[in-house]
Amino acid sequence: MTNDLFPISFTCDYNEGAHPDILRRLLETNLQQEPGYGCDRFTQSAITKIRQAIACPNADVVFMVGGTQTNATVIDGLLPRYGAVIAVSTGHIAVHEAGAIEHTGHKVIPLTHHDGKMHADELRNYLVRFFADDTWQHMANPKMVYLSFPTEYGTIYSRCELEEIHAVCQEYGLLLFVDGARLGYGLSSPEADIDLPTLAHLCDVFYIGGTKVGALCGEAVVFPKGNAPQPLLTIVKQHGALLAKGRLLGIQFDTLFTDNLYFRISRHAIDMAMKLQQLFLDKQIPLFILSPTNQQFPILTDDQRKRLDGKVLYEVWENLTDGRTVTRFATSWATPIEHIRLLAEVL
Amino acid sequence: MTNDLFPISFTCDYNEGAHPDILRRLLETNLQQEPGYGCDRFTQSAITKIRQAIACPNADVVFMVGGTQTNATVIDGLLPRYGAVIAVSTGHIAVHEAGAIEHTGHKVIPLTHHDGKMHADELRNYLVRFFADDTWQHMANPKMVYLSFPTEYGTIYSRCELEEIHAVCQEYGLLLFVDGARLGYGLSSPEADIDLPTLAHLCDVFYIGGTKVGALCGEAVVFPKGNAPQPLLTIVKQHGALLAKGRLLGIQFDTLFTDNLYFRISRHAIDMAMKLQQLFLDKQIPLFILSPTNQQFPILTDDQRKRLDGKVLYEVWENLTDGRTVTRFATSWATPIEHIRLLAEVL
Amino acid sequence: MTNDLFPISFTCDYNEGAHPDILRRLLETNLQQEPGYGCDRFTQSAITKIRQAIACPNADVVFMVGGTQTNATVIDGLLPRYGAVIAVSTGHIAVHEAGAIEHTGHKVIPLTHHDGKMHADELRNYLVRFFADDTWQHMANPKMVYLSFPTEYGTIYSRCELEEIHAVCQEYGLLLFVDGARLGYGLSSPEADIDLPTLAHLCDVFYIGGTKVGALCGEAVVFPKGNAPQPLLTIVKQHGALLAKGRLLGIQFDTLFTDNLYFRISRHAIDMAMKLQQLFLDKQIPLFILSPTNQQFPILTDDQRKRLDGKVLYEVWENLTDGRTVTRFATSWATPIEHIRLLAEVL
Amino acid sequence: MTNDLFPISFTCDYNEGAHPDILRRLLETNLQQEPGYGCDRFTQSAITKIRQAIACPNADVVFMVGGTQTNATVIDGLLPRYGAVIAVSTGHIAVHEAGAIEHTGHKVIPLTHHDGKMHADELRNYLVRFFADDTWQHMANPKMVYLSFPTEYGTIYSRCELEEIHAVCQEYGLLLFVDGARLGYGLSSPEADIDLPTLAHLCDVFYIGGTKVGALCGEAVVFPKGNAPQPLLTIVKQHGALLAKGRLLGIQFDTLFTDNLYFRISRHAIDMAMKLQQLFLDKQIPLFILSPTNQQFPILTDDQRKRLDGKVLYEVWENLTDGRTVTRFATSWATPIEHIRLLAEVL
Repeated sequence: MTNDLFPISFTCDYNEGAHPDILRRLLETNLQQEPGYGCDRFTQSAITKIRQAIACPNADVVFMVGGTQTNATVIDGLLPRYGAVIAVSTGHIAVHEAGAIEHTGHKVIPLTHHDGKMHADELRNYLVRFFADDTWQHMANPKMVYLSFPTEYGTIYSRCELEEIHAVCQEYGLLLFVDGARLGYGLSSPEADIDLPTLAHLCDVFYIGGTKVGALCGEAVVFPKGNAPQPLLTIVKQHGALLAKGRLLGIQFDTLFTDNLYFRISRHAIDMAMKLQQLFLDKQIPLFILSPTNQQFPILTDDQRKRLDGKVLYEVWENLTDGRTVTRFATSWATPIEHIRLLAEVL
Repeated sequence: MTNDLFPISFTCDYNEGAHPDILRRLLETNLQQEPGYGCDRFTQSAITKIRQAIACPNADVVFMVGGTQTNATVIDGLLPRYGAVIAVSTGHIAVHEAGAIEHTGHKVIPLTHHDGKMHADELRNYLVRFFADDTWQHMANPKMVYLSFPTEYGTIYSRCELEEIHAVCQEYGLLLFVDGARLGYGLSSPEADIDLPTLAHLCDVFYIGGTKVGALCGEAVVFPKGNAPQPLLTIVKQHGALLAKGRLLGIQFDTLFTDNLYFRISRHAIDMAMKLQQLFLDKQIPLFILSPTNQQFPILTDDQRKRLDGKVLYEVWENLTDGRTVTRFATSWATPIEHIRLLAEVL
Repeated sequence: MTNDLFPISFTCDYNEGAHPDILRRLLETNLQQEPGYGCDRFTQSAITKIRQAIACPNADVVFMVGGTQTNATVIDGLLPRYGAVIAVSTGHIAVHEAGAIEHTGHKVIPLTHHDGKMHADELRNYLVRFFADDTWQHMANPKMVYLSFPTEYGTIYSRCELEEIHAVCQEYGLLLFVDGARLGYGLSSPEADIDLPTLAHLCDVFYIGGTKVGALCGEAVVFPKGNAPQPLLTIVKQHGALLAKGRLLGIQFDTLFTDNLYFRISRHAIDMAMKLQQLFLDKQIPLFILSPTNQQFPILTDDQRKRLDGKVLYEVWENLTDGRTVTRFATSWATPIEHIRLLAEVL
Repeated sequence: MTNDLFPISFTCDYNEGAHPDILRRLLETNLQQEPGYGCDRFTQSAITKIRQAIACPNADVVFMVGGTQTNATVIDGLLPRYGAVIAVSTGHIAVHEAGAIEHTGHKVIPLTHHDGKMHADELRNYLVRFFADDTWQHMANPKMVYLSFPTEYGTIYSRCELEEIHAVCQEYGLLLFVDGARLGYGLSSPEADIDLPTLAHLCDVFYIGGTKVGALCGEAVVFPKGNAPQPLLTIVKQHGALLAKGRLLGIQFDTLFTDNLYFRISRHAIDMAMKLQQLFLDKQIPLFILSPTNQQFPILTDDQRKRLDGKVLYEVWENLTDGRTVTRFATSWATPIEHIRLLAEVL
C-alpha cells in the first residue's frame, strides 16, 4: 500500500466537486445565452422534472444556493413577523446556523430530541400547554415545525411518525417544513418507508438538497401545493438568495432529475455507508447511533484514532468522559469503494 | 445571413456560463477531496493571488456567491446597529435589491446622482448639515458610503474623484465601500486612471465581481487593511452567505487571477463595447450617456426597435416622453465579435 | 416687566406635563386595583369613547406610549416582511426616527414633499412606473402610504386631497396610515374640512396623538375597520410597546375623550397659534409657511433673535443663505395667552 | 366583614397607580416648562441621585418606559450583530417577551434553571464546550449573560453566586446584564447580602425597575462604568424607547431616590410578603418555592381556591398533576396590611 493514496476523507459529504454528468452539462451549455434569475430554459426544465418526481403538478419550485440561506429564506418568507419555529434542540437551525434564523427575527423554540428526531406527542404537549396558558399572547407564537430528513444523527422519520407530526401541525395551524439537505440519502435508506411524493404530501414546504448530493451547490425548495409566499422573487432576493446566473442551479437539478441520477447516486452513498457500518461492527467498534443513512458514528479509542492519523480524515462529534471519542464518518455520491477498503486496512 | 444565428442577446453580462478555463479547472480538480467553507487549497491560493494583485499582503479576502448577498453581508457586518449607509439614489442597494439592506436593519440614505455618480462636495454638504443639526441624534447615523465602480450607468470615478470622496469619509469617520460587481470592466476602461492597488488603497472594503466577469457565480470581498469584522465566518454564515463547497468559489477566482485572466477578459468586453458605441454613433443613434465601460445606452426609435425584434435582445432602460426608448446593450467576456457584426447588419 | 416671567418656551408642544384633569383623574383612581396590559376598566372605557368619537363601533383601538414606537409597531405589524412604506422626504419616519422603521426591516421610499404634503398624482405616478417596470420584483414592494396630519410643516390635507390619496391606495392595494401625533391641532385648524369620523373612513389605520395634546404620554392607535393585525397583544409586546400599567394610558385617553376635552384644548392651542401668526405679521416678520396649525415658522433676523435671547425659547428650523433663520414657534394646550403678550413685548 | 372590601388582588405588583409622593410631584411641577427627551432638570437630578446611590459617579443612566423595551434595547444596543445572550430557560427574555429579543436579531441561548437561577459552573461548562468545539464559528456567539434579580421564582442570587458568574463572564469576554424589574424587592429581602453599589460593581449593565416598585412606568438603566453604547440617544430612539416627555420618568425616579423612598416602599412589600408567607405556613398551605421576596407561591387545593373565588385574586402559575395548583401571590409597595388580614379571614 503506497502512501500516495492517503489521506482519504470521510469528513463530510461535500468534500468533492460535482457529479461528472453535471460538469459535462455545464460545458455543453456554456455559451448558450439565457436570461438570468431562473428564467432560463434549464431551470424551467428542472422545475418540470421535479414536479413529476414529487407528483405535484402545481408545486412551486425555487432554487437557492445553500442550506442556511434556504432555511432562513423559507422560514422568514412563510412566518408572520411574530411567528416562531419549533425544532429539536439538535436541529441545524437551532445550533449550527450562527443564529441566522434569529437574525431574521424569529425565535427557534427547542424541543427535546431523540436520536435527532422530534416526537409527535411531545410536540403536541408543548402546543397544548402553550395555548392553555393564559399568558400565551406574551410568548413567541409557534407557527411552524422544522424537521430534518435525515436528522443530524443520520436517523430518519418513518411514514407513521411524519403523519403524526403532520396531524399535530394541522390541528394547531402550524406549517411543516422539512430540511432535506441530505434528502436523497434519507429516502434511499433501506429503512425509509416513504418516497418523494409521500413527503411532498405530508409537508407544506421542503427542500431537495443538492450541495451534499452531487451538485456543486444548490437546494431545490418545493412548495407542493403551489403555496409559495408571493412575490417569491422579491422575497428570495431580499434575503440575498437570488442567483443572477440561475442557469447554474437549473442545469444541475435538471441533470440530477434526469434518468433518476439523484437517487442513483444517493443509493451509492448508502451502499458505501452500509459497508462502513459493517466494517465498524466487524472490528468491534461500537456505534453511537445505528444510523441508516450516509453518516456513521463510530466510537473510537485513542489507539484507533492514532492509527488513522494522517491517513483517514473524519469529524470529531463528541468527547466521551471515558476518553473515547464519538466520530462521524460520512459517505457521499463520490465515495469510491476503494476508500472503504483503505480504511479497513488502516484499522 | 441565416436565421439560425438569431436571436443574439446584449441583455446583460450574465447571459452565458463561465470562461472555459474555469470549467476546465473544475473538471481537473473535481474529485480532489478538500475541506469545506473556504478552507480548501484553491481558496487559499486565490486569496494569495488577490493579495498580490491588490498589493495588500495583509488583506482579508472572503468569497461570496452573489452581489445582493455580498452587499447585505458587508454593510450589516461592518455597520453598527444604528448606522446608515449613504448611496446615490440610483445605487444598486438603493433601488434594485428588494430592500435587502433595510432587511438587515440599516437605512440607505439617498444622495442625488450625476450619471450614476456621487459628488464629493454634495456628500460633504450632507454631512456638514447633518452634524450641524442639533437633532442629529434623532436621525439615522451615516457611517458608510457606498459607491459602484462602474456605476449603474456605466460611468466610472476618476482617481481624483475617489480621493475626494475618500477624504470626506476619513474626515467624518465613515467607511468607504466600493461595489465592484463589474470591477473588471471599470478598471479596463480606456478612461480609467486607477488600478486595483489604488482602489484598495482608497477604500475600506470592496469586492471584485466574478458573476458578471467570467465566473459562474462569485464575488471576492476584500478588506485591504486586514480589517474584516470578526468572527468573519460567523458573520458570513449568519447572513446565509457561507458556501459549503467553498472550492467552487476558490477555483474560479484562482483561475481568474492566474495569468491575468480577469483583466484579459474584461478588456475584451470593453473592446466589444467600444465597437458597439462606434456602431451606434456611425448609425446616428444617439447615446443617453457616453459610457466608457461595457454597458452602452443607445436611444432607439420604434422603427429601429422593430428591426431588432426577434433578432437582437437588449434591456429597456427608460421610456422617453417623445416616444423613443433608452435601451441598454451590455457586452461581456463572452461577447463574440460576430454579434457586433450581426447587430450592424440588422440595424 | 419683571425677569421672573422669563424664559418662556415655544420650543415644542411637549414642554409641560399633562392637562390638570388628567392628573386629577390619576390621583382619584390611584389605589383602585386593576389588571395590567390594557385589561383595566379605564382602557375599556377609553376605547368605547374613541369608537363613538370616530363613529366606528367595530374599530380596534390600542394604546402605545410614544410616536416612534407607534410608527414602528404599526408599520411592521401591518406590512409583510418584504413591504415598503411610501412617505414624503420630510416625513417623520423618513428623517427623525433614527432609522426605527428600517430597524424593523422595511424600506421607507421617499417622495417629494410640497410644504410637507404628498401629492396624490405624484404618488400615482410613482406606482404606475413601479409596476410598469419589468424589474419591479427586484425592488422593495410598496404596500403602505404614510402621511402626517398635520405635517412636519404644520400643513394639513383637505378632504379632497385625502380622498385622492385614499383612492390611489385602494387602486394599488396599499394601506393608508395617518400619523396623528398632532391630530387634535390638525382637526381644530380653521382650515380643516374633515373631522375624526371622516379621517377614520379614509384610512386603514391612524393614531390620535396624546403626548403633544395634553397627555403625559400616549398615542391611541385606531384600526377603524376592526382590522388590527392579530394576535395584537403579541405584536405590540414583541415591539416593546406593551405597557404593564396600561391604566396610565387608559385613564389619560378616557379623560381626553370625556366632555370633548381633547378638542377643547386643541382649539385653545390653535387660537394661541393664530394670535402668534398675527403677531408676526403685525411686526412685518415673514413666515416661511402660512401654517394653519399650532406650529408657526417665522423667519427672524439676527437682530430679532438677539432680542429674544435668554427670554424666549424656540426651535431653529433652517439657516437661510442670506443670514436669516427660519424658526419654529409651537403652541400647545398649555400655552397661556400671557406668553403671547410677553413675546410681543420682547419683539 | 362587608363585601365592599372585595375583591382584593394579589395578582401582580402593578395593579395600582404610583406612590402618592410621585403623583404629588407630578402635580407640583406640571406647568414648569422643560426640554424633551431627558434633557429636563428632573431627569438630570434623578441621574445624580442614582449615581450616588450606586456609588458610581461616572455611570451612564438612561430611563426607559417598560421592561421588555428595556431588555430589547439594552441587549441589542450592546451586542454585536452576531452576538447571542445566555439566559436560564425560565428567564423573562427567554419566555415572556413575545420573542422581542429575537426580533432584534439575537438568539437567546437557554441554560437549565434552578429555582429560576443560573449556576456559574453550568455557565462555565457551556462556554468551555462552546469554544472547544471546532465548529464554534458556525454557532451563534455568546456575548452576554442575562440574569434577573430577583428571578421569575422570586429567588435571589447571593453575593458569592454573583461573583462567580461575573468571574466566568470576565474570563470569556461576556457582558453581564441584570434585569432588575423588581430590584427593590430583591435588595430589600432579608436574604439579600448585596446592596446597590455591590450590584453595580458586579455587572456591566443593570436596571432599577420602577413599574413594579412604585412608579406609573419606568426603568432606570445603569451602565456603571460609563460604558453605555454611543450615540445612546440614537440607539434608544431607534428602538422606539425614547420618551418625548422624559420629565415623566425623571420626576418619578427623582422622587423614588429622594429620602430613600425606593427602598422604604420595597421593604414594605417584603414585610407584607413575609406575613403572607407566614400566613400560608400557619394554614399548612405548602409553598412551591420558599421565596424570600415579594412573590409567594402557595400550592392550593380546589377547595381552597373555591373559598377565594370572587374575593381574592391571584395568578395561576402551574397545574400540578395531583389536581392542586401552584399559584402566585404578589405584594407590592401598595399592599395594605388590611389585605393580608382579609385573605386570612377568607382562607
